[in-house]
Amino acid sequence: MAAEATYRRPEIRKDAIHNRWVIFSPARARRPSDFKSKSDANPNSNNQSECPFCVGHEHECAPEIFRVPPDSTSDWKIRVIQNLYPALNRELNFPKCPSDSSQCSGDVAVSGFGFHDVVIESPVHPVHLADLSPAQVGDVLLAFKTRIDQLRTLDSIKYVQVFKNHGASAGASMSHSHSQIMALPVVPSAVSARVESMKEFFEQTGKCSLCQVRRDHLLIDESTHFLSIVPFAATFPFEIWTIPRYHSSHFHELDSDKAVDLGGLLKLMLVKMSSQLNNPPFNFMIHTAPLQVNPSQLPSTHWFLQIVPQLSGVGGFEMGTGCYINPVFPEDAAKVLREVLIE
Amino acid sequence: MAAEATYRRPEIRKDAIHNRWVIFSPARARRPSDFKSKSDANPNSNNQSECPFCVGHEHECAPEIFRVPPDSTSDWKIRVIQNLYPALNRELNFPKCPSDSSQCSGDVAVSGFGFHDVVIESPVHPVHLADLSPAQVGDVLLAFKTRIDQLRTLDSIKYVQVFKNHGASAGASMSHSHSQIMALPVVPSAVSARVESMKEFFEQTGKCSLCQVRRDHLLIDESTHFLSIVPFAATFPFEIWTIPRYHSSHFHELDSDKAVDLGGLLKLMLVKMSSQLNNPPFNFMIHTAPLQVNPSQLPSTHWFLQIVPQLSGVGGFEMGTGCYINPVFPEDAAKVLREVLIE
Ligand SMILES: Nc1ncnc2c1ncn2[C@@H]1O[C@H](COP(=O)(O)OP(=O)(O)O[C@H]2O[C@H](CO)[C@@H](O)[C@H](O)[C@H]2O)[C@@H](O)[C@H]1O
Ligand SMILES: Nc1ncnc2c1ncn2[C@@H]1O[C@H](COP(=O)(O)OP(=O)(O)O[C@H]2O[C@H](CO)[C@@H](O)[C@H](O)[C@H]2O)[C@@H](O)[C@H]1O
Repeated sequence: MAAEATYRRPEIRKDAIHNRWVIFSPARARRPSDFKSKSDANPNSNNQSECPFCVGHEHECAPEIFRVPPDSTSDWKIRVIQNLYPALNRELNFPKCPSDSSQCSGDVAVSGFGFHDVVIESPVHPVHLADLSPAQVGDVLLAFKTRIDQLRTLDSIKYVQVFKNHGASAGASMSHSHSQIMALPVVPSAVSARVESMKEFFEQTGKCSLCQVRRDHLLIDESTHFLSIVPFAATFPFEIWTIPRYHSSHFHELDSDKAVDLGGLLKLMLVKMSSQLNNPPFNFMIHTAPLQVNPSQLPSTHWFLQIVPQLSGVGGFEMGTGCYINPVFPEDAAKVLREVLIE
Repeated sequence: MAAEATYRRPEIRKDAIHNRWVIFSPARARRPSDFKSKSDANPNSNNQSECPFCVGHEHECAPEIFRVPPDSTSDWKIRVIQNLYPALNRELNFPKCPSDSSQCSGDVAVSGFGFHDVVIESPVHPVHLADLSPAQVGDVLLAFKTRIDQLRTLDSIKYVQVFKNHGASAGASMSHSHSQIMALPVVPSAVSARVESMKEFFEQTGKCSLCQVRRDHLLIDESTHFLSIVPFAATFPFEIWTIPRYHSSHFHELDSDKAVDLGGLLKLMLVKMSSQLNNPPFNFMIHTAPLQVNPSQLPSTHWFLQIVPQLSGVGGFEMGTGCYINPVFPEDAAKVLREVLIE
C-alpha cells in the first residue's frame, strides 16, 4: 500500500468575510488522475475577422451605452454596450412584488427585470487587460464607475455586480478582452450574507474587518491607496484580494486618482499571476455594498476586488456543502506571488 | 445589428430551500462562443490494469473500512475504504476550540480533523452505478448508511457529506465507479443556511417545505416511497431532486426496503439523464440534517438527493453573487425528463 504523505497538516479556517469554512489540505495536490488531462481549450482563437467586439465591427453589437473618450469615432478606447443575449431584460416592468403563487406554495418568482452590459476593454483583439498601462486599466475601472452611477439612479436596482471572465474554462464565450456589469432588482444572498457577516465582526470588535486585514505574511504588494493579499481563508489556490487602504463601502466612490493607482496594482497582480501560473484562465469580481444599504452598515462594509485563477475544478463536496478544499496555504501562495519579479 | 430574440421572458425565482435567487433566461442558451469547443476529456479511460479500485488491486488502496458482503473475499460487491489523499485527517485531535489567534484578528482556524472515505461501487471497471440493479444500487445506499452510522457515534463529527463525482468535468480524478463520504467537525455554512431557511418556511406555513413539494408539472417520476422532481428554482439545467415522500430529517434513517425502492428510482433518473443528455458528467449530493440537530428543527428538515448534470460552466457572476443563471425553465426540463422513455 502506498504510504500516506507526511505533508503539512490540514487545517480548517473560517472566512470571516463570507462566514464560511475552507479546508486547507496540501496532501490533496498529490492525488493522481486517470482521466486524460484536459486539452488546453484556451488558446485565444484570434478570430479577429469575425469578432463583433473589434473596432470596425460596432454594427454587429447590441446598442452602445457610451464610449471612452466620449466624442471618439473609430479611435475609441473602451465601449460599454448592451449584452446581445442578456440574462435580464431592461424592458420588463420592475417587479414590485412577488407573483401570487407565492402565497400558498412558498414559490416566489419575479419578472426578470435588470440590466446586463458588456465593457469592451480594448478596440483590438489581441490586447488584454494586463497589457494596458496603469492609466488605461484605470480608465476601464472608471467606465465601471460611470455605468454604476447611471444604474444607481434607479430605485429598482438593488445591486450591481461587475465581473470578468478570461479564458474558456473561466466561463468566457468571447475571447476579446471584456468584462460585464449586471444590475439586479434583488440583493443576492451571498451579498447579504457578506454584509451581515462583516457587520457581526464590527459589532464584536468595533473595527471594519477589511480596514485592518493587512498581515505581512499574506501581503503580495501595495500601492498608495490599495493593498493586494491572499486572504487568510482563501477559497481557491492563489486567489487575490485587492482592497482599498481607506474605508469605503462602495466601489463607485472611486475617483480618478485612485483609479490610476488601482489600475497599476491590478495590472501588477494580473501580470504576476500570469507569469507564475502560466497564463491561467481567471475571473475577477468587484464585491461592493448593496446600493440601498442601511446607513448603519456603512462603517462595517468595505469593497474589494477578488481575482480567482482557474486552476482546478470543484466536485460534489463543494456543491453540497459550500465548503471548499484548497491545496495551497494562503501564506505560501502570498510568498510565491510576492517573490515573482516582474520587469 | 442582430435582432434580440423573442424568447420566453426571463424570470427570477427564489429557491426557498436554500434561500437564494436563480435567474431563468432561455435567451442565454443562444449566445455564440468563439472558443474552440472543449474536447470531450471524458471518455472513460479504461486503464483497468492500473486502477487501484478494481478487484485484485485491493493492496494498492488505502485501508479498507468494510466490504459488502462482509465475509466476501475476491467476490466483494462494494468496498468502503479510506481515501489515500484525504482532505481531512482522522488522526489529528478533535479541535475543541479555535486557535488563539482568533481572539485578536478575527481569524479562526481549527485543525483539519475529520474522515474522508471512498465507496467503490462495483468490483469491475466498466460497470457504473446506473448499470447496477435497483437492489444493487440500494446496497450502495445502505453502505453509505452503515458508514454514517459508524461516524455519528463520534461527538466530534457534526456533519456527514455523501457525494459522487462522475466524469472529469464533474471533478472526478478516478474513472472507476465510486462515491465519497466526508465527515466534518463543523457544520458547513450552506447546511446551516438550508436548515435555517427550511425552519423559516415551517414557521410561516406550519408545513415542512419538502413534504408538500410535489407539483405535477415539476414531477419526473415517483416510486412507493420517493419522488423525483426538477425543483421550482433549479440552480442548474436538468438538475433533479429525489425526495422521500415520508417525512425524514436524516438520510441514515433509510431502511432496506426503502433503499431498494430508492435504488430503483435513482437508477431510473441516471438512465433518463444519460439517455436524454448524452451521458453527461454529473455530481450527486445527499443533503441531510446535521447530526446534532436541535430537536425543534426535526419537523422542518427533510433530506433529499440532488443530481446535477454538468452541462455548462459558471463565470464571475455566479462566483460573485451566489446567484446562478439557468437557461432551462424547470417545468420544461421536467417535461423532457418525464417523457424520455426507458426500455
Ligand atoms: N454581438 C454582441 N453584442 C453584444 N454582446 C454580445 C455579442 N456577442 C456576444 N455577446 C455577449 O458577450 C458576453 C461575453 O461574456 P463572457 O465571455 O464573459 O461569458 P458569458 O456571459 O458568455 O458566460 C459566462 O458567464 C456567465 C455569467 O457569469 C455564466 O452564466 C456562464 O455560464 C459563463 O459561460 C456574453 O454574455 C454574450 O451574450
Ligand atoms: N489508491 C487509492 N486508495 C484510496 N483512495 C484513492 C486511491 N487513489 C486515489 N484515491 C482517491 O480517490 C478519490 C477519487 O475521487 P473523485 O474522482 O471523486 O474526485 P477527487 O476527490 O479526486 O476530486 C474532486 O472532488 C473533490 C471534492 O468534491 C474536489 O475538491 C476536487 O476539486 C474534485 O476534482 C480521490 O479523492 C483520491 O484521493
